Amino acid sequence: LLVLEISVPAGSEDDLLHEIADQWPSYLAYAASFSTIGAAWVAHSAVTGYIERADATLVRLNLLLLMVISFLPFPTKLLAEYASESDSARVASTFYGVTILAAAVLLSVLWRYAVHARLVRSDAEGAEIEMLTARLTPGLAGYVVMISLGLFLPVVAVVGYLAIAILILAPLRRRGRAGSSS
Amino acid sequence: LLVLEISVPAGSEDDLLHEIADQWPSYLAYAASFSTIGAAWVAHSAVTGYIERADATLVRLNLLLLMVISFLPFPTKLLAEYASESDSARVASTFYGVTILAAAVLLSVLWRYAVHARLVRSDAEGAEIEMLTARLTPGLAGYVVMISLGLFLPVVAVVGYLAIAILILAPLRRRGRAGSSS
Amino acid sequence: LLVLEISVPAGSEDDLLHEIADQWPSYLAYAASFSTIGAAWVAHSAVTGYIERADATLVRLNLLLLMVISFLPFPTKLLAEYASESDSARVASTFYGVTILAAAVLLSVLWRYAVHARLVRSDAEGAEIEMLTARLTPGLAGYVVMISLGLFLPVVAVVGYLAIAILILAPLRRRGRAGSSS
Amino acid sequence: LLVLEISVPAGSEDDLLHEIADQWPSYLAYAASFSTIGAAWVAHSAVTGYIERADATLVRLNLLLLMVISFLPFPTKLLAEYASESDSARVASTFYGVTILAAAVLLSVLWRYAVHARLVRSDAEGAEIEMLTARLTPGLAGYVVMISLGLFLPVVAVVGYLAIAILILAPLRRRGRAGSSS
Repeated sequence: LLVLEISVPAGSEDDLLHEIADQWPSYLAYAASFSTIGAAWVAHSAVTGYIERADATLVRLNLLLLMVISFLPFPTKLLAEYASESDSARVASTFYGVTILAAAVLLSVLWRYAVHARLVRSDAEGAEIEMLTARLTPGLAGYVVMISLGLFLPVVAVVGYLAIAILILAPLRRRGRAGSSS
Repeated sequence: LLVLEISVPAGSEDDLLHEIADQWPSYLAYAASFSTIGAAWVAHSAVTGYIERADATLVRLNLLLLMVISFLPFPTKLLAEYASESDSARVASTFYGVTILAAAVLLSVLWRYAVHARLVRSDAEGAEIEMLTARLTPGLAGYVVMISLGLFLPVVAVVGYLAIAILILAPLRRRGRAGSSS
Repeated sequence: LLVLEISVPAGSEDDLLHEIADQWPSYLAYAASFSTIGAAWVAHSAVTGYIERADATLVRLNLLLLMVISFLPFPTKLLAEYASESDSARVASTFYGVTILAAAVLLSVLWRYAVHARLVRSDAEGAEIEMLTARLTPGLAGYVVMISLGLFLPVVAVVGYLAIAILILAPLRRRGRAGSSS
Repeated sequence: LLVLEISVPAGSEDDLLHEIADQWPSYLAYAASFSTIGAAWVAHSAVTGYIERADATLVRLNLLLLMVISFLPFPTKLLAEYASESDSARVASTFYGVTILAAAVLLSVLWRYAVHARLVRSDAEGAEIEMLTARLTPGLAGYVVMISLGLFLPVVAVVGYLAIAILILAPLRRRGRAGSSS
């Protein structure tokens, strides 16, 4: 989770306090990415906890998911740099949102594929499986809404991405723990 | 603990020895951050060793704490760049101190919340719990003193942050070990 | 797998969308390196799963292999920067291909040395050992073909490196799992 | 072991092949640092495998050692940048050598302190302890020789640092393994 390196000041020593305050888009983008990667990691652990064995497709889906998540620092950097300029901010916010959405879709596809291909642990109850499937879906809808919103209010959308990550985070953790101990 | 990348020379090959010596604020900032992250990690392990289960609030507090600690390289970089200029050094030192203080407060809050919400392991004795609570407090006071001092003597304050980290480090480790073996 | 930091935009806020699209060599190079490191890691796990003990030569071969793989971000960066200019693209693509080939050769040598020096686990069957030996070879031929192709069509060669990594990835994973559970 | 980021080309697309070849000090510095960190890590594991419990001094010595090793990328970068200019190369090579020597001295001090303070595992035989003590010493002498040599022939000294790391690496690994299984 080394998303940092992102936030660099302009190098003017005249008014460092002002300069630090001016970096707010970096802080917002950092917080959003940190929470999103955290949420993705927790959700991924929950899914992995239920999967018993992997086949070739699952391994490739998993690699693709990791690749998209590892790619996140790039849109984060764009967001941090362009959040204060209206036109570019829309592009950066949309690019960011689409990357997160891709990760969320991939995680959902990976889980549905694992259920469909009977790779899930045999002692997992049907109710638990359905619950996890249900959990992974609302995030998708939330990201689509935020991407649309980001075309008009890019900064609000980033706050939205942060909020979705925080909302997802807590309940999935408990689910993941239940999955690994039961 | 990859705090590095920070210390870069100006690129003048005339007097490299002098240039290396001139980077002393980077070395000081690096040593302070390395020790602080080390101390935070050890203290976090000690706290985690006593916690039995996590609820939604604890998971979020924990994420917030990790986010603040992962943010530390940014104030470190500011400190390394501006420690030799009097006005900016005050801002950089205060910004750095506030970030460390926020991490120390969050760790203390996380521990107090865990005790309050009865998430602590049932075999932990009351005396041990009180001892850890007491251990996490003096650091807070030390950081407040150093932040105030940093408004006048920024470099001294950074040496102070380094000293606090070294002081915290050793005893907490023993506490953490006791926690994980008893 | 922190191959990132690579993709940076030119800093022009006029047409960010266009700028993002113009970074396609970075994305291609990133995907190729991510898959290659992933494939190398999986292949390395498969080999390690069969090895029982290490001697001095094996430790040095292993260090050399890790060094080459850790070196990969440098040719990746060159590829990302020079893929759109015809002459330099050939050099960058060849340099990249030779680095990957060196990693693949080293892994193959490491495995053959382990088999030859009887460092392989005694419960591993001859058929399994031969299968792994056979698996590590076609990648070598593929890389040689792609390096030659890269002298004329550098971008196609990079797509080829990506394809080889994806092809290697899945079956070796299953082999690795079998190795660690049987 | 993410020593990279170091090797960056000048950005001239006229003769990329020449440019890549011109980066040889980066490759040498990278190889030397990679091997040294590898050797330090292996030696540290060997020492840790014999230590049963830690006291306050040992924890601080260990932090100091980790801090020095994590600092290595900075002299590596200096070496990579200034190895081709005669005057600066001497400074860079000496600075690099002193950093490695400091790490080697700290590891030796840490081990001697652990033996002296009776923190070593009780089932470790006296012969094994003496052997490890003896193993950690010749590296020190080698580094002192190389630092002296580096004042006249800086590049040769770097090759020497690389050679010492490779020499240390293999036998210590076997010692480490014996330590953790007996």
